[in-house]
Amino acid sequence: MGEKDPVVLEKDGPIGYITLNRPEKRNALSLEVMKRIIAILEALKEDPSVRVLIIRGRGPAFCAGHDLTELTGGGDRVHRFREIFGICSEMMYGIHRIPQPVIAQVHGIATAAGCQLVAACDLAVAERGARFATPGVKIGLFCTTPMVPLVRVVGRRRAMEMLLTGRFISAEEALEWGLVNRVVAPENLEEETLKLAHEIAQYSRATIALGKKAFYDQIDLPEYSAYGYAREIISLNGTFDDAAEGISAFLEKRKPLWKDS
Amino acid sequence: MGEKDPVVLEKDGPIGYITLNRPEKRNALSLEVMKRIIAILEALKEDPSVRVLIIRGRGPAFCAGHDLTELTGGGDRVHRFREIFGICSEMMYGIHRIPQPVIAQVHGIATAAGCQLVAACDLAVAERGARFATPGVKIGLFCTTPMVPLVRVVGRRRAMEMLLTGRFISAEEALEWGLVNRVVAPENLEEETLKLAHEIAQYSRATIALGKKAFYDQIDLPEYSAYGYAREIISLNGTFDDAAEGISAFLEKRKPLWKDS
Amino acid sequence: MGEKDPVVLEKDGPIGYITLNRPEKRNALSLEVMKRIIAILEALKEDPSVRVLIIRGRGPAFCAGHDLTELTGGGDRVHRFREIFGICSEMMYGIHRIPQPVIAQVHGIATAAGCQLVAACDLAVAERGARFATPGVKIGLFCTTPMVPLVRVVGRRRAMEMLLTGRFISAEEALEWGLVNRVVAPENLEEETLKLAHEIAQYSRATIALGKKAFYDQIDLPEYSAYGYAREIISLNGTFDDAAEGISAFLEKRKPLWKDS
Repeated sequence: MGEKDPVVLEKDGPIGYITLNRPEKRNALSLEVMKRIIAILEALKEDPSVRVLIIRGRGPAFCAGHDLTELTGGGDRVHRFREIFGICSEMMYGIHRIPQPVIAQVHGIATAAGCQLVAACDLAVAERGARFATPGVKIGLFCTTPMVPLVRVVGRRRAMEMLLTGRFISAEEALEWGLVNRVVAPENLEEETLKLAHEIAQYSRATIALGKKAFYDQIDLPEYSAYGYAREIISLNGTFDDAAEGISAFLEKRKPLWKDS
Repeated sequence: MGEKDPVVLEKDGPIGYITLNRPEKRNALSLEVMKRIIAILEALKEDPSVRVLIIRGRGPAFCAGHDLTELTGGGDRVHRFREIFGICSEMMYGIHRIPQPVIAQVHGIATAAGCQLVAACDLAVAERGARFATPGVKIGLFCTTPMVPLVRVVGRRRAMEMLLTGRFISAEEALEWGLVNRVVAPENLEEETLKLAHEIAQYSRATIALGKKAFYDQIDLPEYSAYGYAREIISLNGTFDDAAEGISAFLEKRKPLWKDS
Repeated sequence: MGEKDPVVLEKDGPIGYITLNRPEKRNALSLEVMKRIIAILEALKEDPSVRVLIIRGRGPAFCAGHDLTELTGGGDRVHRFREIFGICSEMMYGIHRIPQPVIAQVHGIATAAGCQLVAACDLAVAERGARFATPGVKIGLFCTTPMVPLVRVVGRRRAMEMLLTGRFISAEEALEWGLVNRVVAPENLEEETLKLAHEIAQYSRATIALGKKAFYDQIDLPEYSAYGYAREIISLNGTFDDAAEGISAFLEKRKPLWKDS
């Protein structure tokens, strides 16, 4: 890991890691960091060697949100905000658009856009002491962009409380509210996240990619339309070699051999 | 119950039962089974004697999903998939469209389309040992159609975990996540489900039918439009004899006598 | 508090109180009450002295819903229902449209439109013994309008159960399901609600107003559109003096001094 790189991509077998690497800044999402993540996500779209992506942070915090020093200063403030939050939205939404499932591995704090990053990932594992907040209200800047994935994950009442008070919620609350999938002891965080990643990485890449895309494509459709869409996607999935192999393997009580494994 | 019928409809007073009756196939949803259920649902629309419907399965499992043997074999695979999942969606969505509330009575496992069936019912009661999964990913066929009602019932983070890992969740998790309404001891499953059914069956059929329809009609509308729609429906409801009777009975502190009871 | 006024507005520093004041009617929402609340909400839109609004009820119940005596009687029933539920929807939705966060302070029972009122507020605090129900089904009048905010707050399965059975849920269930944010001892209800209100009241009024509006404006948008919208709103927020002050204060490790404080 380059000590100087603010974001590091590493690969370990089928697992990719994006590591936020500005521990002294509590991994603040500067423009440079966000652009680098977007570039990595773009590259991963075409990288079949990575089957599951883990996003984590180095140092005491997972991610403390935007780099506030970039939001201040002279010049055209609206222009600067539009640039930063446009790039940020592109990065967050981009996590939904890559074919690989993305797991947030959360330790320490995840605040503002850092909390948004957790909500924007497909899955999340947190250490017991992790804490989550959208505290923009405390500095006069409502966490409007973090709110977008947050409320869609934890629901209205809980999102509203986090947004209006800025208070930290515990890992336990995050689990109850559906913001994270697992809460584990700090010493097991890496191992448990990796275990979840490997569980998913063993499956057909083509199937996972199609399914993840369909998940987000159908989620804002009326239910009836979603059924219509899902029918076409599963029929398409049925033409995949991996589906034929998977079904045959199941009926023959043997382990499937994916075409792309 | 005809030992040969793959689906059995029975009536016990105001309660109807659809029993999946292929225990040796863990009640797999073959085309024949699904078409039979669609026909029963169609008939129930016009059957005022049934006020609440319970769906249950005979044998060790509630329902293990589609009949995989029907998905394999030669011929036009896309055509076959489109037919099967088109019929399946018609059946699942059809549960929302009948006037009677439908309760899933779940024992053993409910997997893939079997788990979808639980999510597609209006309510669900599960025995303590019941387990739920959307394991299509394990055979290379993502549970895309099950995902449609599942994510709308349990939310994004939990649905995504089930879909990407295929793991079983327990009845307790299903209760916490809102997939089922009650978890009961195995020996009380039938009785508790029936009790819930009778609780609902005592109310005005016309009112329940209108309310259930409105529930699903308004759910995908923006909130403001939903209010506009709900106002008209409740005004229509106000013209029902059963509403006049119900309000009078309440004000007179007596038991209402429904027109259709 | 005027003993005769069916609804009372009071102010205590930055906190406003709307008190339902028909204890002998369990604070039933008569047309007069609803029109009075709408007028108060309209006035509060232009009242910068009130930063957070608490809605509470006097007497044994928070609110028992509509005034049933107004729903009966001769004349044009559809016209009467349309008027009452049109006014009701305007009041409920109006809570979303005022710039101040609104907290329901719930004791005793909150039923039918009373339960809707809890769901329609931005946040809710309940005493341990509070109970919630949508029992319209018991009188032949499905809680169609209460359903609109209820299902959007507690989800499909739980809302459906409440609507079809009419049963009371406890404060603990309301907390687990996300209908309320806190459950406290009866003797602490007022104090804990006020504490939550003051926590929010300390923040920038302009920021809170923008954020609350954005919350409800984006909630029915597809996620991608919501991101686009949120980007513009947070950029607009960035031009606020309170955002500049808040960020500076944070970077300078001092307490912010809001322009409007």
